[in-house]
Amino acid sequence: MKINGTPHRTIWLNENGSAVDIIDQTRLPHEFVIRTLNSLEDAAEAIFVMRVRGAPLIGATAAYGLALAMRNDPSDSALQSACADLLATRPTASNLRWALERMRPALLALPEQERATMAYRLAADICDEDVRMNESIGNHGLEIIRERWAQRRPGQEAFHILTHCNAGWLATVDWGTAISPIYKAHDEGIPVHVWADETRPRNQGAALTAWELASHGVPHDVIVDNAGGYLMQHGQVDMVIVGTDRTVRSGDVCNKIGTYLKALAARDNNVPFYVTLPGPTIDWNIRDGVNDIPIEERDAAEVTHIDGKRANGEVERVQLTPDGVTARNFAFDVTPARLVTGLITERGVCEASEAGLLGLYPEQAE
Amino acid sequence: MKINGTPHRTIWLNENGSAVDIIDQTRLPHEFVIRTLNSLEDAAEAIFVMRVRGAPLIGATAAYGLALAMRNDPSDSALQSACADLLATRPTASNLRWALERMRPALLALPEQERATMAYRLAADICDEDVRMNESIGNHGLEIIRERWAQRRPGQEAFHILTHCNAGWLATVDWGTAISPIYKAHDEGIPVHVWADETRPRNQGAALTAWELASHGVPHDVIVDNAGGYLMQHGQVDMVIVGTDRTVRSGDVCNKIGTYLKALAARDNNVPFYVTLPGPTIDWNIRDGVNDIPIEERDAAEVTHIDGKRANGEVERVQLTPDGVTARNFAFDVTPARLVTGLITERGVCEASEAGLLGLYPEQAE
Repeated sequence: MKINGTPHRTIWLNENGSAVDIIDQTRLPHEFVIRTLNSLEDAAEAIFVMRVRGAPLIGATAAYGLALAMRNDPSDSALQSACADLLATRPTASNLRWALERMRPALLALPEQERATMAYRLAADICDEDVRMNESIGNHGLEIIRERWAQRRPGQEAFHILTHCNAGWLATVDWGTAISPIYKAHDEGIPVHVWADETRPRNQGAALTAWELASHGVPHDVIVDNAGGYLMQHGQVDMVIVGTDRTVRSGDVCNKIGTYLKALAARDNNVPFYVTLPGPTIDWNIRDGVNDIPIEERDAAEVTHIDGKRANGEVERVQLTPDGVTARNFAFDVTPARLVTGLITERGVCEASEAGLLGLYPEQAE
Repeated sequence: MKINGTPHRTIWLNENGSAVDIIDQTRLPHEFVIRTLNSLEDAAEAIFVMRVRGAPLIGATAAYGLALAMRNDPSDSALQSACADLLATRPTASNLRWALERMRPALLALPEQERATMAYRLAADICDEDVRMNESIGNHGLEIIRERWAQRRPGQEAFHILTHCNAGWLATVDWGTAISPIYKAHDEGIPVHVWADETRPRNQGAALTAWELASHGVPHDVIVDNAGGYLMQHGQVDMVIVGTDRTVRSGDVCNKIGTYLKALAARDNNVPFYVTLPGPTIDWNIRDGVNDIPIEERDAAEVTHIDGKRANGEVERVQLTPDGVTARNFAFDVTPARLVTGLITERGVCEASEAGLLGLYPEQAE
């Protein structure tokens, strides 16, 4: 999407044709820094320290990391070792594994001298495929926004969409998932306004969603995670759109902690609650999302401390709680399918249910 | 309550018999500083910059502020001017007005030379009355905790109570409202464990609730406001207890923003949701809390910036959002009576309804 009027992706081939450029997301929102990855090690480090984050973008970066490795040494052993190094950076990232498993056999089947070229081509394909899928989610979501905007109240000046965390273009190669329909609506002139939940503890909403919406010119306000219920009670939210880290067969969705609370408020106030997802993130093996998806518990320091910009411009971590306080940090929660108005996928929109999902993905029928 | 084993109130007469000591809450949670108020001006400043906060404590501080004024100059004009100065510090604080309206006519009726002594006595009465009321709330809430703890699951090791914001002793003269039953239960040996919502944007939970629970020795963990739904889905919350800034005739309760989201999650997971309140905070003139209670919108800087302790120990304000981002900051939300399991008052526990409240406060029947 655009930064100051110029279209960007989160990852792209450097103009020298071999290095790879990324937006260093550890510097956002306070600084916009492009970083050049020249080697496998650079790519692995970027994933490990979260200069790139978001499942699709991690997969794309790993793909280019493999291409950088092949350019340096296209041998079988270098290929296997590069895959192992990349997998070790974020062991639970499913897109990372998926990208590598897609490239490895294709590269092993080629003579060594053709591997680097093919690796760059496959990495570019993975990026383009992500962009197409997200743009398709955007188009399907746009239709819903168009319909609801057409039914607006007399005098209503903006279409208010609440989102949680960052499921924007920064989490993907471009467009994003939850924010993709919002960009589409904005770009065609629907006066969307976004309520961006700050999304404690890592503040992806306050930092990344606010930054990308501002960069593209989409009107928005940051709110604390506590505010959504009040806004819905007072008719100030026309629709909720969020992403999901994992959707299960029954339509339950696992997303950033706090999503479930917004779904409850949406239901209590008759606000439509949509979840966007690319098909590959559906876990067809699980039915009961609330009880069967393991929830990651992260470092309590994410709750007790936070990064911020000091008056002098330096970014520093500060402590929010009393010395010695204990905290717990659960990273995700599960929103039961019964609270979800619809799932927006690259293949269209469906009910959040096994029947709904199988209607779009009939190849998954048992 | 206790700090390192020593009982404290939030405000007390200095040992010199005329000055008034307070805990300077602007220094919490990173420093524990006692501040001595020697004059009306000191008291007004303490209220204005929120060295003292919480409706009951503001009222108590204003009462002592008037006593300090009378000690300096007991004339009618000094009395009227002191009341005006104190009222101007927090114009919407109802307990502040209530305390002054109670003292002013009593003092005006006395000869000047008796006013200072009476003012100190009335201020002490206001403090003691607050403590008695809160302790009574604690005793009524304790009965509920006792009953529920008696019904615990086999092997259950702790009774988990979630609370939002700070309705603890720091907001009152002692005991607090929502936390009063928790102190009572802890002190009689029930193994309570508190989930303290951090309570963005002002973080009263992460700062004040965590500090006072730690100081008294009550086990607790700070969580982000997003986490409560997950915990309730997984059986890790036995009860929710919160305070309220205003309770209306129908039983709707207006409390810190985000309370409503926790009430929804409690209902969805069959977790009892109790609200504690001293009778004087009931607004008998309003029936529809959601639509008729005006909600304060505060400075957006509370969302975009936060105070924290740097590695070198200095407390500094840092910026969380990108430069120039807009934010909105709604301070309260209203939890409809239908989501409230019961109201815990100084007179006992009742259903959150007009009938329930009138059962305890029959003098308010129309």
